[in-house]
Amino acid sequence: MKQYIYGKNTILEALRGEKSVYTVYIQNNLKDNKIIELCKRKKVRFELVDKSEFIKKLGNVKHQGVMAEVKEYRYYSIDEILNSIPEGKTPLLLMLDGLEDPHNLGAILRTCDALGVDGVIIGKNRSVGLNGTVAKVSTGAIDYVKVAQVTNLTRTLEDLKKRSFWIVGCDLDQSQDYRQVDYNLPLVIVIGSEGFGISRLVKKSCDFNVVLPMVGHVTSLNASVATAVILYQVYNSRNPL
Amino acid sequence: MKQYIYGKNTILEALRGEKSVYTVYIQNNLKDNKIIELCKRKKVRFELVDKSEFIKKLGNVKHQGVMAEVKEYRYYSIDEILNSIPEGKTPLLLMLDGLEDPHNLGAILRTCDALGVDGVIIGKNRSVGLNGTVAKVSTGAIDYVKVAQVTNLTRTLEDLKKRSFWIVGCDLDQSQDYRQVDYNLPLVIVIGSEGFGISRLVKKSCDFNVVLPMVGHVTSLNASVATAVILYQVYNSRNPL
Repeated sequence: MKQYIYGKNTILEALRGEKSVYTVYIQNNLKDNKIIELCKRKKVRFELVDKSEFIKKLGNVKHQGVMAEVKEYRYYSIDEILNSIPEGKTPLLLMLDGLEDPHNLGAILRTCDALGVDGVIIGKNRSVGLNGTVAKVSTGAIDYVKVAQVTNLTRTLEDLKKRSFWIVGCDLDQSQDYRQVDYNLPLVIVIGSEGFGISRLVKKSCDFNVVLPMVGHVTSLNASVATAVILYQVYNSRNPL
Repeated sequence: MKQYIYGKNTILEALRGEKSVYTVYIQNNLKDNKIIELCKRKKVRFELVDKSEFIKKLGNVKHQGVMAEVKEYRYYSIDEILNSIPEGKTPLLLMLDGLEDPHNLGAILRTCDALGVDGVIIGKNRSVGLNGTVAKVSTGAIDYVKVAQVTNLTRTLEDLKKRSFWIVGCDLDQSQDYRQVDYNLPLVIVIGSEGFGISRLVKKSCDFNVVLPMVGHVTSLNASVATAVILYQVYNSRNPL
């Protein structure tokens, strides 16, 4: 299966990384020498095409005059993710329960790459998956962070608990300050959807519920922002100065 | 001056808050009783209108069937912001140097409200200002966070230094880990633009340069994500458990 990705940084990362790039399309009046050079060096086919080709293939997005046909983003199985965790590392997984916005998923993958998160678990239904917008917003992180798509989030959490993971849900109800928890354990951090938070059954599987302190009028943070604040807390407690 | 805002939460917050709402427009086939009730209670005029009115006034945005004509978002002066800081509180300001994406600004205002940031300073040129998209993404925080728009960011920083502020820039070059800095001082945190970071002259005005640890392949985080991680660090060091 093939799909299209777009945006300069996304294409550069794809060319530099292990992603299979079939063809790069560059807008004919905006030749990008850096990308052309890299295509030549990596022996990837490229074509100069008219602007209208971009609209036909991508619709109305900010493509910056460059797109590529690539091998479809593949999902990993939970076992593949667990087997890839280096020996001696305390595992860290992130579960996104019903996240819908591709900009949030892209920004989250970027943070996960930056902090060495071992894998991201998303649901098959009602959730955004890996697509061109996610790829662009992730500025290439999509090629490095392993994502598993599962049918049943609750069952996945129960399986992971049997494999000695602890589950930390980020939610407002009956929660403790996120700074009070010991993050030096094999962990799954669970983040809820933009509108509805963590679903009831998933919440029942959580061992801890944590909340970020908030002193203003709004009652929640942007999902990618909240995820990053928690993940940095985990990183900092595992890697103190 | 008037402007349009849209989205259910934005309108609800505007009606509940101190924002002057002139007229609320609700899509006639999607009557929203919660908003209609609130309009009646707050004595705000509302109209049921056809979907086409939304496209005419807003263009192609996710309006959720509700928009409102409101008094234009006003900017504050630096003096107004400084004068509104409660006595005894250690001031905390955020400067955004060339931020362009309204989604980032909206998410940042949400974080600033949540953490009690005293004011946000943006430049007049080449920066996104307060608009309907920012309002929607901010989920109402735009009504609570004071924003100043200044002509010259460097001059503003120099003025603030004379008023005993310390300037912390978040940038990759010649920076120390963000956990090494003492945030218990009157502070301006400076965040750069999405593509180019902090501009040269602004950087010269910074007393400290801090960087977030990153162990992966990407070289930066989303701007609203990085802002939140730093601001939570400031909050946590000022409000320890």
